[in-house]
Amino acid sequence: MKLRLISACCMLLAIGGPAFADQVLGSVSSPDKTLNVTVQLAGDGHLTYEVQRRGKPLIAPSKLGFLLANAPQMDQGFSLEKQSSSAHDDTWEQPWGERRYVRNRYQELKLDLVQKEMSNRHLSVVFRVFDDGVGFRYEFPEQPQLPVARISDELTEFIVAPPATAWWQEAGEKAALEYAIRKTPLAEVGMANTPMTIRTRDGTHIAFHEAALVDYSSMWLRKVEGQKLRAHLTPSADGAPVERSGAFTTPWRTMRIADNAAGLYMSDLELNLNEPNKLGDVSWVHPSKFVGVWWEMHLEKSTWGSGTKHGATTANTKRYIDFAAKNGFRGVLVEGWNLGWDGNWSGGGSQFSFTQSYPDFDLHALSAYARQKGVRLIGHHETGGNVARYEQQMDAGYQLYAKEGVDSIKSGYVTDGGEAIFANAGGGTHYGYTDSQEGVRHYLKAVTEAARYKLAIDTHEPVKDTGLRRTYPNWISREGARGMEYNAWGNPINSVDHEVNLVFTRMLSGPMDYTPGILSLEGVKGRPINSTQARQLASFVAIYSPIVMAADLIENYEKYPGPFKFIKDVPTDWADTRVPHGELGEYVTIARKDRHTDEWYVGSLTDGQARTLTLPLTFLDPGRQYTAEIYRDGDQADYRNSHRFDIVIEKRTVTAATVLQLKLAPGGGQAIRLTPR
Amino acid sequence: MKLRLISACCMLLAIGGPAFADQVLGSVSSPDKTLNVTVQLAGDGHLTYEVQRRGKPLIAPSKLGFLLANAPQMDQGFSLEKQSSSAHDDTWEQPWGERRYVRNRYQELKLDLVQKEMSNRHLSVVFRVFDDGVGFRYEFPEQPQLPVARISDELTEFIVAPPATAWWQEAGEKAALEYAIRKTPLAEVGMANTPMTIRTRDGTHIAFHEAALVDYSSMWLRKVEGQKLRAHLTPSADGAPVERSGAFTTPWRTMRIADNAAGLYMSDLELNLNEPNKLGDVSWVHPSKFVGVWWEMHLEKSTWGSGTKHGATTANTKRYIDFAAKNGFRGVLVEGWNLGWDGNWSGGGSQFSFTQSYPDFDLHALSAYARQKGVRLIGHHETGGNVARYEQQMDAGYQLYAKEGVDSIKSGYVTDGGEAIFANAGGGTHYGYTDSQEGVRHYLKAVTEAARYKLAIDTHEPVKDTGLRRTYPNWISREGARGMEYNAWGNPINSVDHEVNLVFTRMLSGPMDYTPGILSLEGVKGRPINSTQARQLASFVAIYSPIVMAADLIENYEKYPGPFKFIKDVPTDWADTRVPHGELGEYVTIARKDRHTDEWYVGSLTDGQARTLTLPLTFLDPGRQYTAEIYRDGDQADYRNSHRFDIVIEKRTVTAATVLQLKLAPGGGQAIRLTPR
Repeated sequence: MKLRLISACCMLLAIGGPAFADQVLGSVSSPDKTLNVTVQLAGDGHLTYEVQRRGKPLIAPSKLGFLLANAPQMDQGFSLEKQSSSAHDDTWEQPWGERRYVRNRYQELKLDLVQKEMSNRHLSVVFRVFDDGVGFRYEFPEQPQLPVARISDELTEFIVAPPATAWWQEAGEKAALEYAIRKTPLAEVGMANTPMTIRTRDGTHIAFHEAALVDYSSMWLRKVEGQKLRAHLTPSADGAPVERSGAFTTPWRTMRIADNAAGLYMSDLELNLNEPNKLGDVSWVHPSKFVGVWWEMHLEKSTWGSGTKHGATTANTKRYIDFAAKNGFRGVLVEGWNLGWDGNWSGGGSQFSFTQSYPDFDLHALSAYARQKGVRLIGHHETGGNVARYEQQMDAGYQLYAKEGVDSIKSGYVTDGGEAIFANAGGGTHYGYTDSQEGVRHYLKAVTEAARYKLAIDTHEPVKDTGLRRTYPNWISREGARGMEYNAWGNPINSVDHEVNLVFTRMLSGPMDYTPGILSLEGVKGRPINSTQARQLASFVAIYSPIVMAADLIENYEKYPGPFKFIKDVPTDWADTRVPHGELGEYVTIARKDRHTDEWYVGSLTDGQARTLTLPLTFLDPGRQYTAEIYRDGDQADYRNSHRFDIVIEKRTVTAATVLQLKLAPGGGQAIRLTPR
Repeated sequence: MKLRLISACCMLLAIGGPAFADQVLGSVSSPDKTLNVTVQLAGDGHLTYEVQRRGKPLIAPSKLGFLLANAPQMDQGFSLEKQSSSAHDDTWEQPWGERRYVRNRYQELKLDLVQKEMSNRHLSVVFRVFDDGVGFRYEFPEQPQLPVARISDELTEFIVAPPATAWWQEAGEKAALEYAIRKTPLAEVGMANTPMTIRTRDGTHIAFHEAALVDYSSMWLRKVEGQKLRAHLTPSADGAPVERSGAFTTPWRTMRIADNAAGLYMSDLELNLNEPNKLGDVSWVHPSKFVGVWWEMHLEKSTWGSGTKHGATTANTKRYIDFAAKNGFRGVLVEGWNLGWDGNWSGGGSQFSFTQSYPDFDLHALSAYARQKGVRLIGHHETGGNVARYEQQMDAGYQLYAKEGVDSIKSGYVTDGGEAIFANAGGGTHYGYTDSQEGVRHYLKAVTEAARYKLAIDTHEPVKDTGLRRTYPNWISREGARGMEYNAWGNPINSVDHEVNLVFTRMLSGPMDYTPGILSLEGVKGRPINSTQARQLASFVAIYSPIVMAADLIENYEKYPGPFKFIKDVPTDWADTRVPHGELGEYVTIARKDRHTDEWYVGSLTDGQARTLTLPLTFLDPGRQYTAEIYRDGDQADYRNSHRFDIVIEKRTVTAATVLQLKLAPGGGQAIRLTPR
């Protein structure tokens, strides 16, 4: 039995009578009017929203609301108390990014709701509708009816109206961000992480994600039935998934919406929904490239731990500093420098020190040596997932680096078995998800504390990127996807379409420290990777990060000076980005304008299929001549055989009127540097 | 990065070398050898099991294990400490049920495992393989390494090898057991409750469920990707989903496996995995039929609450007692007898008294009046989902009924918004799932406490049935699916194939208080239901329960004396049950032998399609003549129009050699009583 107060009006509803039609609480359109969001009070008292695009249903009426552990449900019995609309249009500047200026133009609808039968308990919902998507969030006011909200379940649904295909990653397992991306009918999604990108039958693309994930648990998307997804909050180890006191807002639930994949990529929806920069002057954050003592350990040529094959030695690091200085790389990452890498270093066994080096690594001397050569060491804080232990030492670790002139840190949360360790309030520890509310708190704390020391942070095994780099521009990059290291030892290695999947899924959320540039095209024991050399170069442009590692061994760069030149030339900070064309999981071309010169760079990738892509250079300044340095697959190039090394490096003169034909090999790519003459 | 201790053997694995093949820990077959279960230690240290049927993969290697909130993971690094096998074959007798004698024959494999790197922490897994299915459970011993287990995630997977179709209900919402049953490809399942039935491409049927759910949270099935499902433990409002101390066993995870739907139905797998009867003599539990003051409220002819239309009055109840006595019904259910039905009676607002009647209902006088006529009142404890409040009054409520000679109670947990209310250990209350560990504890407590007073319990809005009626035979029935009441006011009402879906899904778990027998074939305001009259009769046989309500109003039974005779004659306790034929969601015929006479009863149902089903009466005693009283759809009968009332009642003489042709109309059925001459 599922009874409510059976009254005449409900009975009429049950028979399907017209007496209790849904009541529209408000409606808001995008500035260009293509998108429309309507919020309704359904006949049975539930709150729903729907999205139409060019007059056709895109998101069918989908529920809003919460179940609470400590108070009655917040999912029905609402009345509208107040409705307000506003418009916003400004342009703001990023200290670094894929473009310099970001336009923030939307129409906003705010609904203040009250549950009269719950002692007039209040809840607000705010919708912002942009030309390129929709974001909405809930706002809980301070109220005696709910001094503390323990959210056991967020009921937000996303019911996709037209049949669609989805590109998604599993969630619900702890190292989940490193699963391969799947392509299935949307109806065959299980539990997905975000961003999740879909393409409907008529070609509309949607990327589901969230913005400004602060002090809340990470949202997964759980398929309910058919094409209905709903929010699934990462569980807490103890208590409800989310607990907040007083007034608070949830993260924004976002949907980038575009006619094609390129349009999705061009959106800055999540950044626009984040709070402006809180750090002020961030000139101490340096977009740059780096090399380092890293890939050799993944290739098993050296070890993180101590011993005769220890990679992080003073001598080896000096080699990399010299190489970096000679070739214009600002940074040198060194992993394995600190005590704790011997034995079982992840999880409960973690014994890392964040202040003490191995005896064969002289941090102080090397920092000075580097700085003298115009290079900086990049710090490394591998936590082994033992957040409790890390938080105790983090400040001392930051202080040490600040003192030594190290101004950026790569952090890691490698867990063996997937569980991170957190401190109990009253002493002792417990295991939990890094995506939980407490995990989310930790990741941000590591960044805000680092800012006090003018340290930038590159987080590996991170929480998803939800645009907080706008508010804290020292959060420069993260992993959060299957990276290059899987090409060393993965089982399987990255598939040939991995990068083109990444661009239109993971890369919609923010920078990735993907570590491209493996010109040797091989992993451990010479096992080939699914790439041509030209694609390794193209990845420097196509996979965005303000800090990019040229990941290969020094000897491989010395072996291939031709291709290596592109790596030396390519910048990592941009004034503008264009996506002339692309299809999910198939191919993409991205063109970017250097922030500091008038140069443009182009990176084009394909999957396992050869393609010729037409690229009009209309983004160049009109009436100006450019030298194009083209690095392209040779005519016989193919990732599947020894011709993966076939690369042609040529120059031509071009203008904005030029149309290039980019001939990509199977598993291939193309990289172009365009310099004004 | 997803690092483990990178060592030579793991590297070889990464390249796909043969060095680290899966290690078989044990293997066990069904007594008839058709099913085989193999448990292996996978190369990466995970434990998996697989199921083969007639030598072909049925369940692909699927993970086993747990994540704990208070200790390192229990999902890898296992070694086998001890392996033991045994065989079991006995037959036990049920005090009531679909058959009298149940054969319990299986082969068992027990594996005692140890995680050496977790201080030699132990875990056992036990598999029991029957000819008709597989059950397995985990056993946690008492050990200092894990004095308390806080299970945050059970990692048990079920990876179905051949492509399959699934009949499933959504889970994850609190009143979920009342969703309509969906039929989709298995790959399109989202989060399902159990039982979930699938049919593979070659016709193999599997029903996934659990047995002996005690002091643990209810298992939902979450689709991960493709046809991989995994256990999803109902969350707790506070803390990990499951917390246990010392030695304990999990519920059995079960798979009934058969060549066809009928074979699935015939299995007693879950009952066999439950503990034997703990209550001893249960002659105070009475399989029987009842009528009552109930449907009229769903039709809105009267109210649960007080006032001029109050249904539960002394006068109205007397009418039902007289009718029951005259027509051989043992019980009279009365809802709305007790204070608390006025106003908002569910959830936090619940003000029910379980001891005080409304002034116009004289419990004492009516109990006496009934008993004098050979009838018993059936008690009603609607809790409104306020478990905290109910537990405070439950004992007093039970005592009252025991004193008044009421020997069975229908309970209810109707929640408005789906959350039940539980008590906090230290005072106050919180909201949570009824399927949670604390919910599961409550439901069983209500039954064991009732047994002290020799009260039988029929639970509505229950936890799923996992066979505990074997251990506590006073747990006589439950709802736990979309019942007849949806035909009163549902939006939508029950579909025409609802019963045939139920039989091979919900009904695999145990009895359902479905309340058939609406001979008026209509709900509120005359809206027709999707059924013929003959189908209403057939449901008394096809939808099993030891206690069955003839749910319609007295006046409708008086209006249709012909069909009503079947209702008066049909018993509810059986010596044997056969399923001559059936297909999920399409049709089924069930034949049952009365436990107390040599009569047989047949109930046949179809969906919206007319069918002629061939029924050989081979189950009858050979060489004996029977009178068949046949209640069948008229030749023009059809659920979609006024011919839904066309019923033919005829007699014939039959023997075991007779083959009947059951002609079923669209939305129809057939009921037959076979009496030895």
